[in-house]
Amino acid sequence: MVKMKRLTGSAKEISEILDAEYAAYSKSQDNFDGIVADIIADVRENGDAALRAYSEKFDKQTVTDFEVSRETIDQAFAEIDADVLEALKNAKANIESYHKHQIEPGFVDAQTTGVVRGQLVLPIAKVGVYVPGGTAAYPSSVLMNVLPAKIAGVSEIYMVTPPQTKFNPAILVAAQLAGVTKIYQVGGAQAIAALAYGTQSIPKVDKITGPGNVFVATAKKQVFGQVGIDMIAGPSEIGVIADDSANAAYVAADLLSQAEHDKLARAILVTNSKSLADAVDIELEKQLQTLPREEIARSSVSVNGRTIIANSVDEMFELMNEVAPEHLEVAMDNAIEYLPKIKNAGSIFLGHFTSEPIGDYYAGTNHVLPTSGTSRFYSALGVYDFVKRSQFTYYSKDAVAKATKDITTLAYSEGLQAHARAIEIRGEIEK
Amino acid sequence: MVKMKRLTGSAKEISEILDAEYAAYSKSQDNFDGIVADIIADVRENGDAALRAYSEKFDKQTVTDFEVSRETIDQAFAEIDADVLEALKNAKANIESYHKHQIEPGFVDAQTTGVVRGQLVLPIAKVGVYVPGGTAAYPSSVLMNVLPAKIAGVSEIYMVTPPQTKFNPAILVAAQLAGVTKIYQVGGAQAIAALAYGTQSIPKVDKITGPGNVFVATAKKQVFGQVGIDMIAGPSEIGVIADDSANAAYVAADLLSQAEHDKLARAILVTNSKSLADAVDIELEKQLQTLPREEIARSSVSVNGRTIIANSVDEMFELMNEVAPEHLEVAMDNAIEYLPKIKNAGSIFLGHFTSEPIGDYYAGTNHVLPTSGTSRFYSALGVYDFVKRSQFTYYSKDAVAKATKDITTLAYSEGLQAHARAIEIRGEIEK
Repeated sequence: MVKMKRLTGSAKEISEILDAEYAAYSKSQDNFDGIVADIIADVRENGDAALRAYSEKFDKQTVTDFEVSRETIDQAFAEIDADVLEALKNAKANIESYHKHQIEPGFVDAQTTGVVRGQLVLPIAKVGVYVPGGTAAYPSSVLMNVLPAKIAGVSEIYMVTPPQTKFNPAILVAAQLAGVTKIYQVGGAQAIAALAYGTQSIPKVDKITGPGNVFVATAKKQVFGQVGIDMIAGPSEIGVIADDSANAAYVAADLLSQAEHDKLARAILVTNSKSLADAVDIELEKQLQTLPREEIARSSVSVNGRTIIANSVDEMFELMNEVAPEHLEVAMDNAIEYLPKIKNAGSIFLGHFTSEPIGDYYAGTNHVLPTSGTSRFYSALGVYDFVKRSQFTYYSKDAVAKATKDITTLAYSEGLQAHARAIEIRGEIEK
Repeated sequence: MVKMKRLTGSAKEISEILDAEYAAYSKSQDNFDGIVADIIADVRENGDAALRAYSEKFDKQTVTDFEVSRETIDQAFAEIDADVLEALKNAKANIESYHKHQIEPGFVDAQTTGVVRGQLVLPIAKVGVYVPGGTAAYPSSVLMNVLPAKIAGVSEIYMVTPPQTKFNPAILVAAQLAGVTKIYQVGGAQAIAALAYGTQSIPKVDKITGPGNVFVATAKKQVFGQVGIDMIAGPSEIGVIADDSANAAYVAADLLSQAEHDKLARAILVTNSKSLADAVDIELEKQLQTLPREEIARSSVSVNGRTIIANSVDEMFELMNEVAPEHLEVAMDNAIEYLPKIKNAGSIFLGHFTSEPIGDYYAGTNHVLPTSGTSRFYSALGVYDFVKRSQFTYYSKDAVAKATKDITTLAYSEGLQAHARAIEIRGEIEK
């Protein structure tokens, strides 16, 4: 009989327990630093030849041409299930209509005589999107990564995915629907290195997004600075805040929907109702028994699942704000009422019917989300991740003259005389 | 006689030359990884005791109380030069009026029956700001880091700065004017570790911003993921695009204003006028001879300075877009006309009078900017760096029913049955 581990305590105590658990996970990832650094150095040095060697070694595939051909993509359209194609198209429309709200217009400020200041919002030119292979190849993730870039105006979007004997047609179709420029069959840390530094076949990009295994995540961290990256993704998490109004079967089903991803995935229930907590444990066991991915989901909820018992509604939200979950369900009547209490959550699902997988596939909100408590400072992937903001300033001769005293006072006080001289010279030498 | 190294070639060739130079710089930073990792581990393990030991070792200071006292801050207000105080207040007003344009309102989308989607924009709760000590202690940088956080609504802003026998009063005054919550005297990698993990005296924060030396930059990279960081700052750069309309004395003065920061700072002139390039070299020599920081500035322009000769106006912008400079001056008549040609630049200064130091101190645009070509994907520090965006979704029972086929089709096709079950159960069991 599965039972989620119960925790009680103050928000601070709970936070310390979870922090220690995240730290242990994070430490376990450090072991790959050396291997990944070697792979990156090899790709920088040897380009395509290194990529081919790693494809043989890790993917057991001999790759002649890295680019996935037009014929292979056409073939995928011929093979894809009609219902899947229809669902992908509907999901695409929802993702587009949501993300279009994130387009930023920039601004201009012209309130002082002779002074104009402003901000341009410019698309990043070239983006690489990593798509995992094997069982973790999710067409939905292709849409979630590529469409915001497309809406931002990124002109070159390169997708990389591990070489396979036979690609999942839905992956190639999703890439094409979303508007990927080219697809390359290369995976792992070597794919990240190729995108960061370029090889004979793979173009160098400005930013890399997309989830991957520990090699991919470590490589992204190592190339960060050379290129931009979205975030370092850890295992998936779901937090559910539920009171007596919640249906235990719904709550259990939603917890399991994230638990089935990965044994390291984490399901956290915060409730002020001990009877609900008990009922959820019973439902978890019942539902686990019919799940194809029972083994993974059972391990996830048994080892990493947590039930935190709170004393009040306010405490439920305080505790969950410490958890700062990737996904947060509020399984309460009139859930919208509690929105002001939420301080940290990547994506919030309100009410008894808004099951988290609605967001994974369909609602149009992004499913690339900050994990491991990083919703304290990170956001869902969005259009804002594919632009940069460039400031611009214009000062007339007179405006410079008026500002000269303040500017040179500060420059001299900081010991930066050349800064002061650059301003003063405008008043001394005629243009 | 100083002469900036001249480069000619296609945008691609210039880009490769500069990339190789950045890569060499970046490699020189790797040597500190081990030392910094040890410092971070020590601070996590030993907290304040480790901080005290590093303060003795690196700063030659015995620290009893890390928090800078109210009395010390009051004393700074008593000591500060009246003109500096006035200039800081004016700069503050300009920074505030510019950054207020960056406040994002969030959005809600309620166009489909039973479906509400939206995005909340929430301030990050706790931010740490690093302020270097010694000669690189810039009160202007305190304003530039703290004010956007304040405008974003960050409620706790902790400043850290290396312990000193006597603090620069302008630093403490700027911190107070900007609204820092507390100031702690601790510096280097140990300060970053303290902010990332917390110690007995120093609060753990959610995000760390601010420039620092190589220890600070390396530590920020290592704690990234545990906390958010702004960016990895490299040496300062200025790019100037100038044609025959430019005044060589102005251009030289502006190039020197960044060159005086650091021998590694980089001044890049792109021009379609060989005679201007020659005149700028002559002016550089002339102006260098009267600069207090001549040695630094001379080394910077001689070793790292570059003049790139372009064949046309379009090529000037193409080449500079490859440079992707931190600061970009357009020293041309009707400079605003060329704004659409600029693809990559942290902060743009338009026209012959908009000298770059106007932005460093006064205009109100931010001076914390992406260096080393990272304006390809990074932005100036802004209010957007101190918020996170939380998605929210509401689906009614009927809306879920309508979406069930598409969602479950995708979930089953991805082999994630528990995802499908969570949706189906809403139609099977009454709430």
